[in-house]
Amino acid sequence: MLVVDKLSEYDSFKSVYHENRDGEPFPSGLALRQIVDLCRSILFPGYFGNPMVDRRTIKYHIGVNVERLQALLEEQVLAGLCFGCTDEERSLADKKAESKQVVSVFVEFLPELRRVLMTDIEAAYYGDPAAKSFAEIILCYPAVRAISNHRIAHKLLEQGVPMIPRMISEMAHSETGIDIHPGATIGERFSIDHGTGVVIGETAIIGDNVKIYQGVTLGAKSFELDEFGNPVKDVPRHPILEDDVIVYANATILGRVTIGKGAVIGGNIWVTSDVEPGAKVVQSKVNR
Amino acid sequence: MLVVDKLSEYDSFKSVYHENRDGEPFPSGLALRQIVDLCRSILFPGYFGNPMVDRRTIKYHIGVNVERLQALLEEQVLAGLCFGCTDEERSLADKKAESKQVVSVFVEFLPELRRVLMTDIEAAYYGDPAAKSFAEIILCYPAVRAISNHRIAHKLLEQGVPMIPRMISEMAHSETGIDIHPGATIGERFSIDHGTGVVIGETAIIGDNVKIYQGVTLGAKSFELDEFGNPVKDVPRHPILEDDVIVYANATILGRVTIGKGAVIGGNIWVTSDVEPGAKVVQSKVNR
Amino acid sequence: MLVVDKLSEYDSFKSVYHENRDGEPFPSGLALRQIVDLCRSILFPGYFGNPMVDRRTIKYHIGVNVERLQALLEEQVLAGLCFGCTDEERSLADKKAESKQVVSVFVEFLPELRRVLMTDIEAAYYGDPAAKSFAEIILCYPAVRAISNHRIAHKLLEQGVPMIPRMISEMAHSETGIDIHPGATIGERFSIDHGTGVVIGETAIIGDNVKIYQGVTLGAKSFELDEFGNPVKDVPRHPILEDDVIVYANATILGRVTIGKGAVIGGNIWVTSDVEPGAKVVQSKVNR
Amino acid sequence: MLVVDKLSEYDSFKSVYHENRDGEPFPSGLALRQIVDLCRSILFPGYFGNPMVDRRTIKYHIGVNVERLQALLEEQVLAGLCFGCTDEERSLADKKAESKQVVSVFVEFLPELRRVLMTDIEAAYYGDPAAKSFAEIILCYPAVRAISNHRIAHKLLEQGVPMIPRMISEMAHSETGIDIHPGATIGERFSIDHGTGVVIGETAIIGDNVKIYQGVTLGAKSFELDEFGNPVKDVPRHPILEDDVIVYANATILGRVTIGKGAVIGGNIWVTSDVEPGAKVVQSKVNR
Amino acid sequence: MLVVDKLSEYDSFKSVYHENRDGEPFPSGLALRQIVDLCRSILFPGYFGNPMVDRRTIKYHIGVNVERLQALLEEQVLAGLCFGCTDEERSLADKKAESKQVVSVFVEFLPELRRVLMTDIEAAYYGDPAAKSFAEIILCYPAVRAISNHRIAHKLLEQGVPMIPRMISEMAHSETGIDIHPGATIGERFSIDHGTGVVIGETAIIGDNVKIYQGVTLGAKSFELDEFGNPVKDVPRHPILEDDVIVYANATILGRVTIGKGAVIGGNIWVTSDVEPGAKVVQSKVNR
Amino acid sequence: MLVVDKLSEYDSFKSVYHENRDGEPFPSGLALRQIVDLCRSILFPGYFGNPMVDRRTIKYHIGVNVERLQALLEEQVLAGLCFGCTDEERSLADKKAESKQVVSVFVEFLPELRRVLMTDIEAAYYGDPAAKSFAEIILCYPAVRAISNHRIAHKLLEQGVPMIPRMISEMAHSETGIDIHPGATIGERFSIDHGTGVVIGETAIIGDNVKIYQGVTLGAKSFELDEFGNPVKDVPRHPILEDDVIVYANATILGRVTIGKGAVIGGNIWVTSDVEPGAKVVQSKVNR
Repeated sequence: MLVVDKLSEYDSFKSVYHENRDGEPFPSGLALRQIVDLCRSILFPGYFGNPMVDRRTIKYHIGVNVERLQALLEEQVLAGLCFGCTDEERSLADKKAESKQVVSVFVEFLPELRRVLMTDIEAAYYGDPAAKSFAEIILCYPAVRAISNHRIAHKLLEQGVPMIPRMISEMAHSETGIDIHPGATIGERFSIDHGTGVVIGETAIIGDNVKIYQGVTLGAKSFELDEFGNPVKDVPRHPILEDDVIVYANATILGRVTIGKGAVIGGNIWVTSDVEPGAKVVQSKVNR
Repeated sequence: MLVVDKLSEYDSFKSVYHENRDGEPFPSGLALRQIVDLCRSILFPGYFGNPMVDRRTIKYHIGVNVERLQALLEEQVLAGLCFGCTDEERSLADKKAESKQVVSVFVEFLPELRRVLMTDIEAAYYGDPAAKSFAEIILCYPAVRAISNHRIAHKLLEQGVPMIPRMISEMAHSETGIDIHPGATIGERFSIDHGTGVVIGETAIIGDNVKIYQGVTLGAKSFELDEFGNPVKDVPRHPILEDDVIVYANATILGRVTIGKGAVIGGNIWVTSDVEPGAKVVQSKVNR
Repeated sequence: MLVVDKLSEYDSFKSVYHENRDGEPFPSGLALRQIVDLCRSILFPGYFGNPMVDRRTIKYHIGVNVERLQALLEEQVLAGLCFGCTDEERSLADKKAESKQVVSVFVEFLPELRRVLMTDIEAAYYGDPAAKSFAEIILCYPAVRAISNHRIAHKLLEQGVPMIPRMISEMAHSETGIDIHPGATIGERFSIDHGTGVVIGETAIIGDNVKIYQGVTLGAKSFELDEFGNPVKDVPRHPILEDDVIVYANATILGRVTIGKGAVIGGNIWVTSDVEPGAKVVQSKVNR
Repeated sequence: MLVVDKLSEYDSFKSVYHENRDGEPFPSGLALRQIVDLCRSILFPGYFGNPMVDRRTIKYHIGVNVERLQALLEEQVLAGLCFGCTDEERSLADKKAESKQVVSVFVEFLPELRRVLMTDIEAAYYGDPAAKSFAEIILCYPAVRAISNHRIAHKLLEQGVPMIPRMISEMAHSETGIDIHPGATIGERFSIDHGTGVVIGETAIIGDNVKIYQGVTLGAKSFELDEFGNPVKDVPRHPILEDDVIVYANATILGRVTIGKGAVIGGNIWVTSDVEPGAKVVQSKVNR
Repeated sequence: MLVVDKLSEYDSFKSVYHENRDGEPFPSGLALRQIVDLCRSILFPGYFGNPMVDRRTIKYHIGVNVERLQALLEEQVLAGLCFGCTDEERSLADKKAESKQVVSVFVEFLPELRRVLMTDIEAAYYGDPAAKSFAEIILCYPAVRAISNHRIAHKLLEQGVPMIPRMISEMAHSETGIDIHPGATIGERFSIDHGTGVVIGETAIIGDNVKIYQGVTLGAKSFELDEFGNPVKDVPRHPILEDDVIVYANATILGRVTIGKGAVIGGNIWVTSDVEPGAKVVQSKVNR
Repeated sequence: MLVVDKLSEYDSFKSVYHENRDGEPFPSGLALRQIVDLCRSILFPGYFGNPMVDRRTIKYHIGVNVERLQALLEEQVLAGLCFGCTDEERSLADKKAESKQVVSVFVEFLPELRRVLMTDIEAAYYGDPAAKSFAEIILCYPAVRAISNHRIAHKLLEQGVPMIPRMISEMAHSETGIDIHPGATIGERFSIDHGTGVVIGETAIIGDNVKIYQGVTLGAKSFELDEFGNPVKDVPRHPILEDDVIVYANATILGRVTIGKGAVIGGNIWVTSDVEPGAKVVQSKVNR
């Protein structure tokens, strides 16, 4: 078939082609989903994973799950490291050693991750009259999934893993409509209500006890271009939300502005400058 | 491994742990998906489930699907009843009897459910110039899925089933971006266009022939705290939309306000007080 | 069971029933997912499908995938053609011949599709400081999935295939929260950032190098009814965005208005009239 | 790769190649397994298929299963008819009509098939002191599976279906080690104990109430060659076992011999001539 | 369809129908396969189940597998107990208690089961020049699978579990062609070479260090009928093989005979009387 | 649980434990099944694998299948090499290089393998009056599967691969009841009729145009023990069958005897000494 020949010409595909080197693993959405599910089984026993777990047997379950998590995550971190290397500047053995080290740090972090997620769940419970129990929040609330994935992805990004953190965040984005860049820094007791349409940018910094509603954007206003016209990467360009801030539905906060401690941002508005601590910002009146 | 020991200490996991009692079923996302799919096969024969069904054999198909629906739903309702019981105040046999009763009422409701969903489909067809046929709406429109799941979940919640209705709603939320709390009361001929970002709160009441667009929130403005600082549950706090109301994209209506019969709420605005029947509310001018 | 009898009465189900004719295929979500995945494997070798593909073997892989794509797509196009025919005005053989013809045109279009998608990916890369590599965009960005599905669906709709294009678009809508009607006409170098809540209507026309953000609606303001009170179909009623337009988050543009070349539409606003080329439209000040 | 070129040369593969014509189904082991499982669900309700079936709902289950059986079997019979046609002497439509006719006869035969299989099960129960219940025989005895498959395959062969009957028999052969050619004619109350290694040839005729043990061969002694040196097909060349015959383990009976009513053939012997009714044939003494 | 009516008449199906009582589990081939696989994972770590298991983590793996084994086996033992009860003479709670007790005894038996199976593996290794390693025997030898299943099934039968032991034996029979009735009593260091066609009857007793080859039958010669013409169950009717006996390929030993310690039975012969300890029995000369 | 502790003690499991080294693959039954299926797709296009393959596209299919076969087989050969090494005498890199070399030789052998298997199929067709077509033999005859697996396994064993060849042979043994040790040397035009119970030992040598029937054993009579009482491995101890030999059902030929060219061995007999070319050996008369 002629079209097969055309599609197989190097000039036709070279710019959209990834050449996987022999023996290197490939980032796998399926494996990442298993990794996140294993984290949830380990962190919330009895809610996720085997429901039979009891106090007598919990250690067996956690032991098996931690071991399996390590194996899967080492492979995926390695895939990320290989994928990120455009030339062969480092040996595979070297990258394998790094991925073992990254995963070892990640696994040590699990007890702290559980503690912090528990504060997020409490914040959701005490902040939502519709929430009937902690159980309902753990099992049903999309924000718990989005924040869990974020805290996992952020920890991996902190250690320099390419690609994989973003894939973990996008999994949550697809399921929940909540798009948190793995680079964002988020404090404890963080809650998102409903959540669809929330966007939190790469350099955003969020304090403790912050609550945001569906459709809120913490975005960038504009960005610099370098001498070649490319956007300059890694410049702080997203908002800082100090402790105890609330942002209501569909508000859009853009640029490296600071929303001061305890401020309240009303719904459907567009904020591009700093807001004082304790201030309340709302939309202008509507016409009838 | 030390971290396994840490993660297995009772103090570490007790607050995020669900102890499943022996012989009790567990809420299952997979089973709930099958339950919703069975409902769709029963309600819309030839569109969902076995496409071979014809007038000669339809009774066999519906008979088998209803029986399977009963079995699966009885187990999940029981799981919800058990999950909701924090102590063993009721016997398993008692909860089994209740779940049989709940499901029996639900199954009797199926013909009425089909009739009401048909009014929703008609409303979508007559309200959308892009809709080419009823078939397209049934097979493709996310709002049909969201409203179907809602009407199923609402019927179960009415009968006091914990947890399960919320899980059914969240399934639709994840797939469609439409978040309808199972407690919301919704009339006939209800349509949602596009739908991503729609939020309809627990105590919202929606009349007949209402249409809303993507990004619309029917939310709560604030909520009372009890003497312990916990939110008071079950207080009416979401809007009432009377018959024939239209709410355009990204509008946010908050609090126990009433939007009168036939009123039109424009897009991207924030409404926190009552709107007269027949009124039109729009955003203030924009600056250029 | 009495309820089975009720649900099986012709009067009860006739309006929500699809009678599949013997030997005709049925639209299948699973098959459409495989079709989209095959397109992605063919277009982006090494990223999707078999990661082992190398320059020596790429032709084998593309050859097998193109053949399988043809077979699956011919069946689904036929299913669409059969579904769209309410009476038996055309023979099955005739519809089979048409579906072969449609798919043949589609397959010839694949090299051009790859070229255009590459311009979209470049636009995303150069327009987003958070993007670390083309690879990250291809593997992770939801907009790439939404735009790919749109360009596939649009090509099939152009050739008159019923139902199937809409199903392909809705698959992307469900996964990404981006709802692009397959009828929309979209130029090269198109990018959507974050994307949840974006709605692009059936008759929208978008030029080259346009960028839109999450929550943007390009919708219809109102629509005509015919003498029977039904909406008149196929009337141009969605916006035209000329080249180089940017629309920020949660803006809503309604009706057959023209947003002139290079114009910038700010976030959270509602636009219902033409905007001059090069103009900037922003929200009125907010109250503090 | 050179070896790929070699393996793709027409001269290399033409003698081991099956060219499937467009639109023709292919014999499918998976479909045949489903067909046999559906037969078992229909014939032995509550043992196979849905265990929930009760007297109130059995008709729904059988109705759905019969419909599905018809659809699957029509496709496989058609596949057999197409496979058997080396040139295109008959139209596909003609073969489709024949496959519908064949399946219609087969479905009408199901009640009789159930009755006869019940006699086989009774024979197994009354002939085996180790059998604890009819249930154990139905669920566990390999002979029941082998004989069921045989009676299904034989009915299809009777109606001239190529290939498919043999595939059904081989499925049982693989699972049970019992190899009954679908051409063999077998009476009621037939039982095989243990069964591994049993071979019953194409033209064998077995009366009622016959019992054979593991390792028994009812084979051909030799066969004629035609003028081209090919074996002459369809010549009666396997034994006739009259009613009430018993053949013990590992006996080999070869050629068109008749084993008279009530005869008993001892184990581990080789019989190549007729045996009188009522006779007992045993191995000569062994040396110690 | 008329045939559906016929097949659904109670008179037509009553004798081949199993009526499952509400809430009772059903014997499941799939669950039994998982049970056997779990036993193998527990008994032979690193060979079956998770290959990652190491000395540091083995306890976690065994803990999880034992717990899962208990849960699955309790359900299947209960299914067997329910299946075996033709009337409701015992309460479900009573049968549940019994199944817990049976499984508890079974789990305590696992260390002994591992020890005995190890003697069987050693016997295979030292008795077969083709065996290259213990690993090859554990992973590849069908006899190991057949004997493992037997020792599991026999333990369950000893405790009075109906149906389930026979299903476990038949699974091995189907895979290996080795048919050992779960009632047979078998000593240590038992080996079967090749194995296809081996039959070992319900009341056979086999000492230590016995070896048999493919096609060997240890069967019954005839059986008593009771006053109603039914076979008398549970009468000893199969051979006793004392320690150190060897039986070569395709030999058939029938009836309650004793093959004395160290005796050797040659291939292809039929033995129906006792054999002295140390004797060698071979086939008479053949004619040329 | 106490039993978990017992089962996890090193002394309890050390002799039945396989310690997999980090980064080494494990022999996988699933992968071997895929490997055999890929071989069959490559060798018999249109019969196995994708039935759509036609002369225009066959090269793509074979190209993709060969590449996948290489990848899977390299991993399994490596697994075999690792499994066979009890201490770490060779580096993983070294074993990887060997496995690449082994697979490269194997892939080059595929055209010859196809040619030889074709002679086996012809022999089956011309030797069986019940065979209706080559297609029936390729699709249904268990002997084709057993001989295919043998020829694959033998080629791998020739190159010194441990474990894997035996697993491939056992797969066929389990499905067909035909047990051919991968070490056996077998000429062209080899056929096995029915086949259940056939055993062909490790050092057997079979000429061209040999035919054997079900239940035939080509086994060892006895074997030497070394000074430690272990069987001496790799000693020739199985029969040699010269060209054109026929062996009828259930015959047992034991020891390093030679069955001369054209000899015929009758059924159910035990042969332990040489047979002259052209001789016919049959069972002695039976008593009546």
